Amino acid sequence: MEAGVEEGGKKLIAAIAQDYETGEVLMLAYMDEEALRLSRQTGKAHYWSRSRKKLWRKGEISGNEQIIKDFFIDCDEDAVLLKVKQIGGAACHMGYRSCFYRKINGEIVGEKIFEPEEKYGKEWEK
Amino acid sequence: MEAGVEEGGKKLIAAIAQDYETGEVLMLAYMDEEALRLSRQTGKAHYWSRSRKKLWRKGEISGNEQIIKDFFIDCDEDAVLLKVKQIGGAACHMGYRSCFYRKINGEIVGEKIFEPEEKYGKEWEK
Repeated sequence: MEAGVEEGGKKLIAAIAQDYETGEVLMLAYMDEEALRLSRQTGKAHYWSRSRKKLWRKGEISGNEQIIKDFFIDCDEDAVLLKVKQIGGAACHMGYRSCFYRKINGEIVGEKIFEPEEKYGKEWEK
Repeated sequence: MEAGVEEGGKKLIAAIAQDYETGEVLMLAYMDEEALRLSRQTGKAHYWSRSRKKLWRKGEISGNEQIIKDFFIDCDEDAVLLKVKQIGGAACHMGYRSCFYRKINGEIVGEKIFEPEEKYGKEWEK
């Protein structure tokens, strides 16, 4: 497990979500065994929230679910790639299509789809 | 640091390499501060090898370097996305274009570019 992460006795794998049509990389999150199982079973992306320490179905608050169109595993079996249909057009809790909306120098280049305050109310900073 | 990883006192960020022309996701690895600095400074992808516990310039053995064409950071600042020109056409040490050459059910769907034994000799299993 080169890229696998162990945290609080829980084994996690990295999960990349990519737009199935445009190829845009939307986000990077982690899955535990349960999140992986539920993602495969339901066809909707589930992750392990490391900050909230709980299973998290993407879109459970925002409505911005990810429908899994294709599902890959890497050579070391410690990272997965999900090609998804991003409901609502934005993966990022900051309101952008992709969490990678900034260049490394800080310049914002991504497209903002919604205002986080309107979507999440006071919860948005989570 | 939702997706950041701490290991042996070292802070790591996840790094996704994506082909800058086709959008294919090539691999997932990690960077420490030095790997991030060198990647930005040289324009060639450097990672932290968690299995070998050392800095690793992608392609230093195989010749399959990654020339960074664009460089993004995510909302939480604990993951980066590199759009790269993959020298040699293959990112995976198993000889495939992408490390994500298998579907989650194990079916191989990726394109094999080289035979690892020929490229690395006995070193290939690293």
